[in-house]
Amino acid sequence: MELLRVTYRLDGDPSAAAARADAIALEQTVEVPRAVAMRDAFIANEIVGRVESIDATADGARLATIAYPVAATALDPAQLLGVLFGNSSLHADVSCVDFDPPPSLCKALRGPRFGIAGLRALTDVRERALTCTAVKPLGHSPGALADLLRTFARAGIDVVKDDQGLADHAFCPFEARVAACLAAAEQVAEETGHRALYVPNLIGTPERVFAQLRFAEDHGARAVMVSPMLLGLPTFWELCHRHASVPVLAHPCLGGAVRYAPELLFGKLLRLYGADAVIFVGYAGRFGTPRETCAAIASNLRRRWGGLAPSLPIAGGGVALENAAEAVSFYGRDAVLLVGRSLQMDPDRLVERSRALVDTVRDASAVLPGER
Amino acid sequence: MELLRVTYRLDGDPSAAAARADAIALEQTVEVPRAVAMRDAFIANEIVGRVESIDATADGARLATIAYPVAATALDPAQLLGVLFGNSSLHADVSCVDFDPPPSLCKALRGPRFGIAGLRALTDVRERALTCTAVKPLGHSPGALADLLRTFARAGIDVVKDDQGLADHAFCPFEARVAACLAAAEQVAEETGHRALYVPNLIGTPERVFAQLRFAEDHGARAVMVSPMLLGLPTFWELCHRHASVPVLAHPCLGGAVRYAPELLFGKLLRLYGADAVIFVGYAGRFGTPRETCAAIASNLRRRWGGLAPSLPIAGGGVALENAAEAVSFYGRDAVLLVGRSLQMDPDRLVERSRALVDTVRDASAVLPGER
Repeated sequence: MELLRVTYRLDGDPSAAAARADAIALEQTVEVPRAVAMRDAFIANEIVGRVESIDATADGARLATIAYPVAATALDPAQLLGVLFGNSSLHADVSCVDFDPPPSLCKALRGPRFGIAGLRALTDVRERALTCTAVKPLGHSPGALADLLRTFARAGIDVVKDDQGLADHAFCPFEARVAACLAAAEQVAEETGHRALYVPNLIGTPERVFAQLRFAEDHGARAVMVSPMLLGLPTFWELCHRHASVPVLAHPCLGGAVRYAPELLFGKLLRLYGADAVIFVGYAGRFGTPRETCAAIASNLRRRWGGLAPSLPIAGGGVALENAAEAVSFYGRDAVLLVGRSLQMDPDRLVERSRALVDTVRDASAVLPGER
Repeated sequence: MELLRVTYRLDGDPSAAAARADAIALEQTVEVPRAVAMRDAFIANEIVGRVESIDATADGARLATIAYPVAATALDPAQLLGVLFGNSSLHADVSCVDFDPPPSLCKALRGPRFGIAGLRALTDVRERALTCTAVKPLGHSPGALADLLRTFARAGIDVVKDDQGLADHAFCPFEARVAACLAAAEQVAEETGHRALYVPNLIGTPERVFAQLRFAEDHGARAVMVSPMLLGLPTFWELCHRHASVPVLAHPCLGGAVRYAPELLFGKLLRLYGADAVIFVGYAGRFGTPRETCAAIASNLRRRWGGLAPSLPIAGGGVALENAAEAVSFYGRDAVLLVGRSLQMDPDRLVERSRALVDTVRDASAVLPGER
């Protein structure tokens, strides 16, 4: 029987940790008292979770690892979330910090379709870390956003994404914005030979998001971005595996509102569901993610895991031009530096700062150790 | 200009609260420095959020209320979540604790289609609090679950829902389960005249959930349940307003994994999105929600608000037969008591305890003060 192992952090009384872990094993599967569950051999053996280990953390909490029969998930993207952390999320002293999906679950959910290799091929960047910025702020017209995109593309930036706040606004409709930005990228490609990868943001209910995807693909978009925690992970999965024929980037919006460990949510869950690239908020910016968490996210996205393609880490959240070189040495080549507001800090030096980012990342990549 | 007011709790240094609130007002809208946003009059006046007030809480935190032009939300169910708490959720010291949607947003999102009145009509319970339990545990066959449903229905329980963990499992397929349970409820109705409202649980990616809904409705289901935080709120909205012709109950699964205040998430957000009834974990059970939080959730679901129909509070999470009478006096008539494991505690007394619940709620409702 294949098992799904999930690790929870228990912040309550350590002497109650064993009982608490056992309660979670029941809550996440049968949600009845153990005595009731044990009356049925099938339920007792093939449904109920089992506590495998309880260890102390350095700060005195407990880490409980529970093994669930994978059958409880029905191999479904929504049900998996319920088994991982559904009802137990309602206990304030429990966090979900890690999970280890068995082969059948990886095969069912599939993970990235393009991943690092696909995005490198699309951007034609084989040997170095990639650069990324965003067209924003919300409130600009499609024409103004397309002008910004032209500036970034002429500077040589690899990936120019929409801000995640760009929806289908009356003052900047989705279709007009995407058409204008795609045309701008194409225009710069004809002028300079550098075709920046413009990544439109899709947002809305499933019907609208799938229609936006069709529009974007029909008009030549070569990648798209969504915020999976706004849409819901099951919708995200369906977008990746039932609708999209281009790579999908995941934005972390609303992702801090969950009591999942960041290295689980951004490093594993989004990769398992199909993100070809995952934006997360890095250590150098305004969100203050610890360096070791950033390293764990990047490592989880790229390492061999479940037979899934690696996903491209995109470090954002306030990475500045001034620490771009250090960030390249931290994250390495298979990473994207997403530098947004730092480029727009001084609108009169937008061109200069954009070019400086491109040069910095190229130079910092060149001195990295390793094989390429 | 209509404004969306949102209140955040700031747990950091109180002397930095004003600057922090201003940063949130920018982060949730333009996500560029204020100086850049101010260069464009439209953006400055009609997009950027404005801090309206900062107040101290009893425990020394700060509550900041920010007014956003409602246009920033594009009146879209997904974009609304981004404006409410998207990027700011990534700051660990910020929680989203309240919001006040203007009329245009209430009109666009619509809220409950049936609400309390519709569910009372459907169950034919006009004068008292309602009873509810669940068929479970996961692992039972459709036939075993239908047997349980027969027992509960014969005892006179009003609402019998699926456990939220019942998905489309190989050992208990969705279609077989729903057909068996609907037939069982119908059989008891013919025998006894009491037609329990059986509420199937829908779960999966949007395509699967909408197909499950069609199956359930085609086979006579008069209400359905989903876990909106598993599916994603935008999918939940589309289910309610584009697909369902029956009432939709919201289960709180994964709802504790968010740093929204419970009275906001369960009391307001789910009502705004369309839940006709909202299950939450009450004070008496194993989740330990404070009584004042429970009162606030129930009040938010039922009070006059934005021209939306009231939504029916369903108190669950471990409510026991033994405190059912007290719970009726606490929540009042317009409420459902969801008693699950307490009925199944002793499988040999299932019939007796189910009947006792029905009698207790009827008697406790009868002595409530008020007009009915």
